[in-house]
Amino acid sequence: MPLSSQDAKLWRDVSVFDGLQTLPEPMAVLIRGGVIAGLWPESVFALQDAQGAQEVGRGGVMTPGLVDCHTHLVFAGNRAAEFELRLEGASYAEIARAGGGIISSVRAVRDASEEALLEQTLPRLQALIDDGVTSVEIKSGYGLTTADELKMLHVARRLAEQLPVHVTTTLLGAHALPPEFADDSDGYISLVCEQMIPAAAREGLADAVDVFCENIAFSPAQTERVFMAAQAHGLAIKVHAEQLSNQGASALAARYGALSADHIEFLDEAGVKAMAQAGTVATLLPGAFHTLRETQLPPIQLLRDHGVPMALASDANPGTSPICFPTLMLNLACTLFRMTPREALAGATAHAATAIGRKDLGRIAVGAPANLCVWDVQQPAELAYAVQPGRMRQRVFAGVLTHDR
Amino acid sequence: MPLSSQDAKLWRDVSVFDGLQTLPEPMAVLIRGGVIAGLWPESVFALQDAQGAQEVGRGGVMTPGLVDCHTHLVFAGNRAAEFELRLEGASYAEIARAGGGIISSVRAVRDASEEALLEQTLPRLQALIDDGVTSVEIKSGYGLTTADELKMLHVARRLAEQLPVHVTTTLLGAHALPPEFADDSDGYISLVCEQMIPAAAREGLADAVDVFCENIAFSPAQTERVFMAAQAHGLAIKVHAEQLSNQGASALAARYGALSADHIEFLDEAGVKAMAQAGTVATLLPGAFHTLRETQLPPIQLLRDHGVPMALASDANPGTSPICFPTLMLNLACTLFRMTPREALAGATAHAATAIGRKDLGRIAVGAPANLCVWDVQQPAELAYAVQPGRMRQRVFAGVLTHDR
Ligand SMILES: [Zn+2]
Ligand SMILES: [Zn+2]
Repeated sequence: MPLSSQDAKLWRDVSVFDGLQTLPEPMAVLIRGGVIAGLWPESVFALQDAQGAQEVGRGGVMTPGLVDCHTHLVFAGNRAAEFELRLEGASYAEIARAGGGIISSVRAVRDASEEALLEQTLPRLQALIDDGVTSVEIKSGYGLTTADELKMLHVARRLAEQLPVHVTTTLLGAHALPPEFADDSDGYISLVCEQMIPAAAREGLADAVDVFCENIAFSPAQTERVFMAAQAHGLAIKVHAEQLSNQGASALAARYGALSADHIEFLDEAGVKAMAQAGTVATLLPGAFHTLRETQLPPIQLLRDHGVPMALASDANPGTSPICFPTLMLNLACTLFRMTPREALAGATAHAATAIGRKDLGRIAVGAPANLCVWDVQQPAELAYAVQPGRMRQRVFAGVLTHDR
Repeated sequence: MPLSSQDAKLWRDVSVFDGLQTLPEPMAVLIRGGVIAGLWPESVFALQDAQGAQEVGRGGVMTPGLVDCHTHLVFAGNRAAEFELRLEGASYAEIARAGGGIISSVRAVRDASEEALLEQTLPRLQALIDDGVTSVEIKSGYGLTTADELKMLHVARRLAEQLPVHVTTTLLGAHALPPEFADDSDGYISLVCEQMIPAAAREGLADAVDVFCENIAFSPAQTERVFMAAQAHGLAIKVHAEQLSNQGASALAARYGALSADHIEFLDEAGVKAMAQAGTVATLLPGAFHTLRETQLPPIQLLRDHGVPMALASDANPGTSPICFPTLMLNLACTLFRMTPREALAGATAHAATAIGRKDLGRIAVGAPANLCVWDVQQPAELAYAVQPGRMRQRVFAGVLTHDR
């Protein structure tokens, strides 16, 4: 019989990465009623501290459940054909004629029923869960009409009813310009601000609002309009910023108290300082960096110097990061961005939780929600060093053991 | 009850990548008695063609079982601590003092019992199997004494008894210079030629012999001595060549009729021509390229121009490619090396089989051994485009359905 969230469960002699660091000694960990109820160095632990608890694990490495704080997980179809065409030497024009690019994902999402979208997203979410994710942020952004954006957000909400995972939703109406507004980007931003944001807020479908601020997307002035509308409706703010050029979007977002600025390869020191002051998290997305073969590295050392927390996310999406494998992100962050394994792990747990406005998640601490994983590795750094599916031994979500082998 | 290799099994309406290309129509595929017994376009298939067969699948993409033709899968311990130290800014001298580098793997293997080596390797091999591998080449090379090299090869042989996978073994005594021979590399090569190769051949533990020919490893002259000894003992030849500099090792290996030259980032056109003439396969290893952040790309276009078959392998090893996820290699080959998805898939199936001297493997063709996978994707290119564990729906090894969900 599976253990319920009410059963007290005990781990002995585990190496614990608590969301920020690896604890110096092997630990005993107790969860009870869905929260972490006790955390002792193994050397001082006494069984009476955990009365009535069932020992469910011994050894291995325990981390908080991973938090994937930036995904575009809800989409229809895929862009494998475009990927293949490009590698076979097709020109961008040929790919566009064959129906490639983000607009092909927009068409596919608009054409898909809510059921079909849900159905197609479930395996991707399951892959994240099977590699340790217990919280995931999911953005809209391939609908680009009010109805289709809300449809995507509704699918995101329903995912949390179907699978044991915490979902936060972000309205990304300002992701790309839909063909209907080809010559009127300000008009489209008006639609986002005056219809999408109010509707998403009214229906409780969005926890945050995001904008893609870039020379190929929306301008800082348009971005600010979206931020103001989000703020007026009490929604948190995130931004796709400084991915291809320095637009000052991160500093702008920081002025609005944004939860995070994401990508930020071209971020400068002024932007870093603004983020530090505002407590805005820097979300790094090495999957897109890898897929796009980018060469401009995010300013890791500046972020360190100014104490900006660095989160790490999959950016799972059909165009620029078709990757549903969160521990691979740890490896990419270390290999490509030269982050340390500790930084990468903190980025995928505690700092990612901050980036979704949930500082209580992504931690192993007494009183925190019991979302955690136990891994078949010897030390936390091994999760970033080696790339190998299937290393998760146990996963606990809201106190319930969802995976156990 | 699991289906045995004697049961006839039928797939309907699958998209088939046959090892070299995607067949133009959906297919019906029949296996019987451990071999592929029938292959028909779905449109012409009639049920009486497959009398007595049980339908075990419908839809999806079928590929040959993957062939991982270059691995160092048998090792002890891991090098996560070294990975972490380097990223935390430790110098090479500090890492060496902390016991890093290949010699730390040599120490760990020498210290490990055969049982311990087997135990530690099983999860890695299981990860390869769970992502579609049905044939794997495994090298020695961390023992560097006759007894320890044979121990590694013996472990490799035993793995094939423990898990449903075909294993070929390669003696890589000439992987690195052991500390005992620090000033006498020729003396060590004599040991390889006069003791290791004869012993491995006598005991039937090696199918091939490999050498790391590089300015930091063994010279072309030393490499040739090893080739001569291998040939004298009837063993096939492989080579680690042109990874960091152009040593002419690929052309040398081709003169000896080598099965493959592997890495080959610095290979020149003369080397490519020599390989083309000899039928030597070019084995590309994007995992090491990624991990080492190399910038010199292998000469893909020259290999294409001269018709040299390109294989793709994980190079799974604790130092430069701690990666046990074969479909990730498809993505890395396309993203980093700009191979096409078709080339990458052929590289991980038909051409990889040629690189281990088993042209009958890595193919879906009537009469071929029934080693195959069915994937939850829409088209073969999706296996290279998206990175997502858990997409294998079914796996058949030697006619037996080992995975089915
Ligand atoms: Zn994004
Ligand atoms: Zn190798």
